[in-house]
Amino acid sequence: MRNDAPVGVFDSGLGGLTVVREIIRQLPEEQIVYFGDTARVPYGSKSQSTVIHYTEQILNFLYTREVKAIVVACNTVSAYALEEVKDSVPVPIIGVVIPGARVAAHATVNGRVGVIGTEATVQSGLYGRTIRDLAPDVQVYSKACPLFVPLVEEGLWKDPVTTEIAARYLKDLKDADVDTLIMGCTHYPLLRSTIREVMGEHVTLVNPAYETAVELRRTLERYDLMPESGKTADISEHSFYVSDDPERFRRFASGVLKTEIRLPEKIAIEEF
Amino acid sequence: MRNDAPVGVFDSGLGGLTVVREIIRQLPEEQIVYFGDTARVPYGSKSQSTVIHYTEQILNFLYTREVKAIVVACNTVSAYALEEVKDSVPVPIIGVVIPGARVAAHATVNGRVGVIGTEATVQSGLYGRTIRDLAPDVQVYSKACPLFVPLVEEGLWKDPVTTEIAARYLKDLKDADVDTLIMGCTHYPLLRSTIREVMGEHVTLVNPAYETAVELRRTLERYDLMPESGKTADISEHSFYVSDDPERFRRFASGVLKTEIRLPEKIAIEEF
Repeated sequence: MRNDAPVGVFDSGLGGLTVVREIIRQLPEEQIVYFGDTARVPYGSKSQSTVIHYTEQILNFLYTREVKAIVVACNTVSAYALEEVKDSVPVPIIGVVIPGARVAAHATVNGRVGVIGTEATVQSGLYGRTIRDLAPDVQVYSKACPLFVPLVEEGLWKDPVTTEIAARYLKDLKDADVDTLIMGCTHYPLLRSTIREVMGEHVTLVNPAYETAVELRRTLERYDLMPESGKTADISEHSFYVSDDPERFRRFASGVLKTEIRLPEKIAIEEF
Repeated sequence: MRNDAPVGVFDSGLGGLTVVREIIRQLPEEQIVYFGDTARVPYGSKSQSTVIHYTEQILNFLYTREVKAIVVACNTVSAYALEEVKDSVPVPIIGVVIPGARVAAHATVNGRVGVIGTEATVQSGLYGRTIRDLAPDVQVYSKACPLFVPLVEEGLWKDPVTTEIAARYLKDLKDADVDTLIMGCTHYPLLRSTIREVMGEHVTLVNPAYETAVELRRTLERYDLMPESGKTADISEHSFYVSDDPERFRRFASGVLKTEIRLPEKIAIEEF
């Protein structure tokens, strides 16, 4: 593999762009090839076998783009499929769950950590297992929040309805007195202020994106794959691919990345 | 085509079972082959080209089951793709939009009709065009309600949050003084009591499923395809296919149809 090859990043849709933003910030010299499965989003309510099948197609596609490493910027895929597919292409693959779990295990003081995510992410139990492997005494409390993604996509980031729904979803975690909460879905950081309001100021909110970019750097260093040029990649050097409407994706991406991106290319992901 | 061949019915997921229930009630002698695209649901936020592509695959699949007619029990597909795909298989295809529009055009007294549905259904404008073709003086007011499906799937059929969201979505239609409202998504009839509460008793709520079954009968008669046996089909004679978890589908279907169905068969729809 070439040091100057791009890094592949994918998500079930748009949310993974928050991870792209963090990679650009921490590793500005990397070129990125992003795939968003906007036609088949959401993954969070699908069965494990379907998520695995879709993930294999995406890995095959990214491999044709000659990437040197792949970041799974989707909690559902990281929790539900990564273990099963990690050997299907011969490049290192990094998920968001293990980095996020590591931060939480270190951040908690009272040994009580909450995890919120999609039904699939919560059902997988991977955050809990990973945290307990690192810190066996930590108690983990999980809660699926299926309405959070549609509320974000409807633009109700700060709204009494969202606060009411958040209060219901988070009640058990508050009652369990967690001092650390993993926002285990890439959409959820967009509800940070609502989650903060419900949970209170004393709770540490963990966004796994930051630690995932740190893990990417570690991995590239371990495999001697850091780029040598030292030159910051221009936004035009990143490539974006989607499985549905490119224009809609471009509008959202330009908002998240705070700069205009090229029109993504629509591909037939089911053929990979 | 054989008179004793089954009728194909499909939907992006589970909602179309409300149409199956109506067909069983009105045409009890018909065998049904149902496909629910549970892996790729929802369709309502996808682009037209993706909806057309998925619909073609489903029509091809149902055609391999030797159906004599196909009912599109999904408003998004009916509104967004039906015109484009209707010649792709040589059997009559019936959507839910035209039957629903016909009822509304006849039901309105003050000439003001509301339509609620997914973004795709509203954007297509098909309900409005069809109503105006039948009754040029009728005014049609449309509103997309993207949170209704997730609220139904979260079980919040009667809940203050759902009432609050419904009040926001329906405000413009109330202000426009519509006397007839088409529930243009197969999930919405499950929110009937909330919609009724917000709109008031004087507004006629139209569920297109009833009229769609009437239209199916007319079509079968026109093509001389009514079954001759006169024997009521047993629930075990209906076949169900899905693209994701069969067990989850069976639970929901048995609830809607008030009887236990056979475990659906999971198929790889993208290969059709």
